[in-house]
Amino acid sequence: MDVVDLASRLIACPSVTPEDGGALGVLASALESIGFSVERFTSGGPPDGPIENLLAVRGSGAPHFAFAGHSDVVPPGDGWASDPFAPTIHGELLHGRGAVDMKGALAAFVAAAARVPEHQGMLSLVITGDEEGPATHGTVALIERMRARGLVPDLCLVGEPTSEARLGDTIKIGRRGSVNLWIEVPGTQGHVAYPHLADNPATRLVAALAELSAWEIDRGTDWFQPSNLEITDIAIGNPATNIIPGAARARLNIRFNDLQRGADLAAHVEAVVRHHAPRASVRAQVSGEAFLTPPGALSQMVSDAVEAATGSAPKLSTSGGTSDARFLVALCPVVELGLVNATMHKLDEAVALPDLHALVDIYEGVIRRALG
Amino acid sequence: MDVVDLASRLIACPSVTPEDGGALGVLASALESIGFSVERFTSGGPPDGPIENLLAVRGSGAPHFAFAGHSDVVPPGDGWASDPFAPTIHGELLHGRGAVDMKGALAAFVAAAARVPEHQGMLSLVITGDEEGPATHGTVALIERMRARGLVPDLCLVGEPTSEARLGDTIKIGRRGSVNLWIEVPGTQGHVAYPHLADNPATRLVAALAELSAWEIDRGTDWFQPSNLEITDIAIGNPATNIIPGAARARLNIRFNDLQRGADLAAHVEAVVRHHAPRASVRAQVSGEAFLTPPGALSQMVSDAVEAATGSAPKLSTSGGTSDARFLVALCPVVELGLVNATMHKLDEAVALPDLHALVDIYEGVIRRALG
Ligand SMILES: [Zn+2]
Ligand SMILES: [Zn+2]
Repeated sequence: MDVVDLASRLIACPSVTPEDGGALGVLASALESIGFSVERFTSGGPPDGPIENLLAVRGSGAPHFAFAGHSDVVPPGDGWASDPFAPTIHGELLHGRGAVDMKGALAAFVAAAARVPEHQGMLSLVITGDEEGPATHGTVALIERMRARGLVPDLCLVGEPTSEARLGDTIKIGRRGSVNLWIEVPGTQGHVAYPHLADNPATRLVAALAELSAWEIDRGTDWFQPSNLEITDIAIGNPATNIIPGAARARLNIRFNDLQRGADLAAHVEAVVRHHAPRASVRAQVSGEAFLTPPGALSQMVSDAVEAATGSAPKLSTSGGTSDARFLVALCPVVELGLVNATMHKLDEAVALPDLHALVDIYEGVIRRALG
Repeated sequence: MDVVDLASRLIACPSVTPEDGGALGVLASALESIGFSVERFTSGGPPDGPIENLLAVRGSGAPHFAFAGHSDVVPPGDGWASDPFAPTIHGELLHGRGAVDMKGALAAFVAAAARVPEHQGMLSLVITGDEEGPATHGTVALIERMRARGLVPDLCLVGEPTSEARLGDTIKIGRRGSVNLWIEVPGTQGHVAYPHLADNPATRLVAALAELSAWEIDRGTDWFQPSNLEITDIAIGNPATNIIPGAARARLNIRFNDLQRGADLAAHVEAVVRHHAPRASVRAQVSGEAFLTPPGALSQMVSDAVEAATGSAPKLSTSGGTSDARFLVALCPVVELGLVNATMHKLDEAVALPDLHALVDIYEGVIRRALG
């Protein structure tokens, strides 16, 4: 099983969410050739679906070790030096959309599994075509199916590109949560010359936002940085210089650690907004709660595999954006380790070929430690 | 000279700024028929012009009493019960765009002048077609021409609709100033998960706006209400929930009394904004400085004429929006008195016929007192 060849064949599939582009077919053939039973199913309907998902299992009984990831990619954008869906090797770099996020890691895990044909218990791959999109018909549906089949893993490794400067320098043992909030402040429109006849919603909104901006949500924990609120948009849309507007809107995002719950943060935001603007409404959407897999057997196993392959132990981190690990923690302890993320979601995304080979070594080490 | 007939013929001219629609021709004929020398000229070019203006003079020497006003109207908008440019009488109401602001007052002044064919000194009318627009090619150009002709008045009455509940209940002896301010705060765009790599301009803008909203500019004077600041717009325009925006903008308007100067207010706003956002820029446009014609001979003359015609003396006010009086105060003391403003700039604008006749009486009284 040649990791560069498999990564290249996956990159050649234009699998921009929600399209599969043939990616799961390539993966299924590779997995079946090394003894996995592969189940594919679609989930959801327009506009976010249908989504193709894949569940592959080899062996049986305990322990059950799962690898999770996604075959979809973000749109390439314009300006690539080469066709983003025509894998191209320049020197030691394999270029193409998804090279690091995360078709390279999928290929590395399959190549690693090929090197460990015999193991205890069960090895599975949990692969969705909907991680970069709304993620409503991907990992959530896979988890439901695994529960229905009684295939709940004991440990899970997610192959997201967690490495920063150097392959294996960082593994994630948790992720912050994220909540978006939409604030709408109604007012009473009027002429600026007669402010007593109007009720300026901008004044109320600004007072609320100033208080929320200054809010120290917490000071972080041993494993998490402090929770943080950002104003991502404010909109009034009043073209007239002499008119007090009739409504004002804002949007916030809070990235929060495991001291917080999305609903509690939303309730606090609503209370502050209502204090300044009693008629205001606040709508919240929690993209994911914060989670932590406390340092333990799983993180040690992954850390040892990294150190054996690269000579250095990784640091344990919880920084950065969200991933589908937020869903998988409902099943079992989860940690994340993958390629260097410098070019993910960017033009000319590329993986270093030595990294790809080293990641096979690392994943092989993890499999052997988990099921050896 | 029938005031209702003249008002109707003026309303029939569709003189939405900058169009004249024949209005100044109607006015010129009426004035020439009662002994005025009429000079008409256009000023300015696209997009705000050309604008038609009119200067009419009768008599010579001192004192020189001027009546100032405008023949243009604001757009009628949709939803009128009758054609806004087809004057229509229903019961005691004359309907049509400009009925109160201020073709009715123009007709009343001409009718009043017709009743006083002999007077001392000079009576003039200073009429622009650009009061409801940017006012760049109207009263300012008329003032320049009057200065060039040596026709500087000693007293000036502006016929804007100052009456509130009842004809003659309010005359204006001053107006607040107005300044618009455009604030632009640059930032550094980034991902909400990595706020330390970004610089959120919304946070800075909100802090500045909260401080400015809470600013007590002054507490007013005997003749003026407190100066007041309103946020009229905020715009970021960031569609992405996970992106910290790269720039944020806001627009303010300050209505200020004669304790303030537009440039000083702009300097304070800029200082507050720069304190919170050192890279921000603030652009200011002063539409007019505040002015006051302290209660004296002119306001007394107008007040006496109102009381003689209606039985009640008016209150002296400085509230409300700006008018071209802000330019005319450069020449001489100015007060303003006109029709009831309840329907100005609204659908189905209308003047009560008894008010129109009473305004002729009032204006006649003012002319006799000024030039008797
Ligand atoms: Zn990914
Ligand atoms: Zn007017």
